[in-house]
Amino acid sequence: MQVIVPFAASEPKTRLGPTLSTAERDAFAHAMLVDVLWAITETGHEPTVVSTRQFGSEGPLGQAGHDVEIDDRPLSVAVNDRLPDAGDRATAVVMADLALATPASLEGLFAATGDVVIAPGRGGGTNALVVREPSFRVDYHGASVRDHREIATEIEASVTAIDSYRLGTDIDEPADLVEVLLHSDGRAAAWLRERGFSLETGDGRVRVDRPADVPSNH
Amino acid sequence: MQVIVPFAASEPKTRLGPTLSTAERDAFAHAMLVDVLWAITETGHEPTVVSTRQFGSEGPLGQAGHDVEIDDRPLSVAVNDRLPDAGDRATAVVMADLALATPASLEGLFAATGDVVIAPGRGGGTNALVVREPSFRVDYHGASVRDHREIATEIEASVTAIDSYRLGTDIDEPADLVEVLLHSDGRAAAWLRERGFSLETGDGRVRVDRPADVPSNH
Repeated sequence: MQVIVPFAASEPKTRLGPTLSTAERDAFAHAMLVDVLWAITETGHEPTVVSTRQFGSEGPLGQAGHDVEIDDRPLSVAVNDRLPDAGDRATAVVMADLALATPASLEGLFAATGDVVIAPGRGGGTNALVVREPSFRVDYHGASVRDHREIATEIEASVTAIDSYRLGTDIDEPADLVEVLLHSDGRAAAWLRERGFSLETGDGRVRVDRPADVPSNH
Repeated sequence: MQVIVPFAASEPKTRLGPTLSTAERDAFAHAMLVDVLWAITETGHEPTVVSTRQFGSEGPLGQAGHDVEIDDRPLSVAVNDRLPDAGDRATAVVMADLALATPASLEGLFAATGDVVIAPGRGGGTNALVVREPSFRVDYHGASVRDHREIATEIEASVTAIDSYRLGTDIDEPADLVEVLLHSDGRAAAWLRERGFSLETGDGRVRVDRPADVPSNH
């Protein structure tokens, strides 16, 4: 199975802007990507990063020696160009911000049968996908999990849903950082802790807190 | 296995206040409870509702004939009073707002081995739990999933984590209504659709939209 991990390398994770600076979002996005690539590799697959631009070979990502393809087209176009043609092997598409992904959760995805296998993400996203049907094409705009189900139905492809909290949790907004601190011990979680992020418990859901006096290079 | 479903019957779901009136929150909370009880019943278990107050027997809940116990003490106290003593059977605690729960996701919970089985919820909650160890006690305040892991570790009880998007999605805030519309065809989803709620797609995560001109008794 081909496993691709799309990565928006230019100004990633803008919705974390209220909490992280531009440089921090860049570093945090890379940390999550490294976690995702590690988890995929542990399942015995070799991921290919499809990045919107080149990133340095001196960083942890370059050193790990993963395949990187540069493709600055919109996400859906870049993914569709890599989906299987007739006779090709299956293709998995795993988002780069699934900081909670584990080898076990990804094995559940890769091992599931079906022409199209979908792990839904919070807010209507398609966080991970396996495509075995050559006529299936993605459309990540809007409520993509609903659209992908409909596209599969139109071409009479079978759909399998993956019920995974870990794969369903993409890290987009400040409130999502709680999930990283609670459910991961990877590089992204370590990055947050080193910068002073901790859990803030009060009424309702837990939030993250960051002391104002923690220097940004801490 | 004993399965209990705690239900805060007095002014439930206050954090849905920006979107639903008090009477609507009451009706919606009951619709979600009915969905959860149905899913539990489908697994072959008989749920017991532990409600903070009596509710009418003329509604769908009363007609379904589920056991209801009244207990107006705080959630953790009411649950701890019902956890197994030495020699007792296992107890499962399933929250009443898991509108996405299905028989399959609950079977995964009930069938998992371990002294304590935890299905984490978004924002640090403990959405569902199975307790087989008599010395374990719950504490739902704050980041309960972390606290429950620590309590289990202290008493040397084994912990099994359930990786389920459906059990991990409790419906507390307006943004959560998207999940009900996308991933459920139960009574709560029908209730929302009848009142004009639909998906609003734009940048970022999908939101719900409700036309201003839909009458509240529609």
